[in-house]
Amino acid sequence: PHVPYSHQRYTEETMLARSQEFYTLMNQRRSVRFISPEPVPREVIDNVIRTAGTAPSGAHTEPWTFVVVSDPEMKHQIRLIVEEEEEVNYRQRMGDKWVRDLAKLRTNWIKEYLDVAPYLVLIFKQTYGILPNSQKKTHYYNEISVSISCGILLAALQNAGLVTVTSTPLNCGPQLRLLLKRPANEKLLILLPVGYPAADATIPDLKRKPLDDIMVHI
Amino acid sequence: PHVPYSHQRYTEETMLARSQEFYTLMNQRRSVRFISPEPVPREVIDNVIRTAGTAPSGAHTEPWTFVVVSDPEMKHQIRLIVEEEEEVNYRQRMGDKWVRDLAKLRTNWIKEYLDVAPYLVLIFKQTYGILPNSQKKTHYYNEISVSISCGILLAALQNAGLVTVTSTPLNCGPQLRLLLKRPANEKLLILLPVGYPAADATIPDLKRKPLDDIMVHI
Ligand SMILES: Cc1cc2nc3c(=O)[nH]c(=O)nc-3n(C[C@H](O)[C@H](O)[C@H](O)COP(=O)(O)O)c2cc1C
Ligand SMILES: Cc1cc2nc3c(=O)[nH]c(=O)nc-3n(C[C@H](O)[C@H](O)[C@H](O)COP(=O)(O)O)c2cc1C
Repeated sequence: PHVPYSHQRYTEETMLARSQEFYTLMNQRRSVRFISPEPVPREVIDNVIRTAGTAPSGAHTEPWTFVVVSDPEMKHQIRLIVEEEEEVNYRQRMGDKWVRDLAKLRTNWIKEYLDVAPYLVLIFKQTYGILPNSQKKTHYYNEISVSISCGILLAALQNAGLVTVTSTPLNCGPQLRLLLKRPANEKLLILLPVGYPAADATIPDLKRKPLDDIMVHI
Repeated sequence: PHVPYSHQRYTEETMLARSQEFYTLMNQRRSVRFISPEPVPREVIDNVIRTAGTAPSGAHTEPWTFVVVSDPEMKHQIRLIVEEEEEVNYRQRMGDKWVRDLAKLRTNWIKEYLDVAPYLVLIFKQTYGILPNSQKKTHYYNEISVSISCGILLAALQNAGLVTVTSTPLNCGPQLRLLLKRPANEKLLILLPVGYPAADATIPDLKRKPLDDIMVHI
């Protein structure tokens, strides 16, 4: 059944102010690769994941699972898997071009934040669902939907004053899925270490494209 | 070069309140398929697109183009293309199962909002970039990056009190790319009609999964 949509409408002035403030807040987001070990309240993480769960999804399939890891031993196991694969990525698999393209970020295969961050959030996409009768349910556009949900999650983290780095640990998906005991229909999409920034955290001095380079008006 | 990261830190109490408020705001987002023709200030749309442009992207490639269409004739051309393809999708291409899966949404191939909404935002992913020396530049994970950016855009719209429906017009990409004169490296990912909701807008009476169904804590 359909129901009436109830809307929160603002004046034009308020819309303009709100859109400007939200831009300013989001524009302060940066990928931070140096995370503090300080604890972060679990309720904040719960709210951030709840917020990610409000994302739209193809045919309302909600094809996401958020695995939140705070157990130190489990974080360390994840680190071992990621570093082993990333070392191969940097040294052999990906070639000089990839390593050059990443040079300005000064990233390498050592990922201390995987031990240090109070939380690791591993975002899995459900490539299909399972119906009550055990048949497979198609998850249309599941990767797009889960990535959109990740965007909303990143906005929620930024709004709460927490930092992360969006990472896609290449070739680690199958091992991490087994380690975390996720079912076969789930595939790792993104890994986010979450916490406060380390006191001496640095970031690459990147600029963002101006509006005219990303928008065309017709 | 790397620079120090400067951080806005909140007390635990403030973080909790902010994360709760942002969840409440985002949880009010719904896909609205009945959009009002009332005009919306252009500056608000500019701020929303600016906000989308703050998203992270693989190796900072920023592989997105946002085409904002307000010209009535161009909106109508878009509608003709989308409705023609969507009719084939519903009648033949996608099969009974797809049509059944969409039944609860009561969608069909008639997309009045494409004429009516004051803005259509067409989000293109740049599947590769072009370097100054005309060589191709790899855009790592471009679809994930652009979808994350779309998630942040949806958050910005919701924050400003505007509505949309996330749509992926199946098989319309190539024709719309030509209509909008976008280059060959750009592929249509998502089409968003943007405006205020129509006064009598209705929505499917959907529920979202509870936190326990989407989050696992280890
Ligand atoms: C990747 C993606 C593709 C979608 N495609 C369409 C579409 O083509 N047409 C449509 O009416 N809705 C589309 N939707 C919207 C979903 O049906 C909607 O998000 C879902 O039913 C949940 O409703 P909500 O957004 O109101 O929470 C799409 C959503 C996503 C994320
Ligand atoms: C899909 C995707 C994959 C990424 N993968 C990695 C990664 O594996 N390791 C990493 O350090 N950063 C990764 N990043 C972060 C980007 O390098 C970063 O977003 C970009 O340099 C822009 O910087 P900013 O996020 O501070 O604006 C990724 C970002 C995206 C969106």
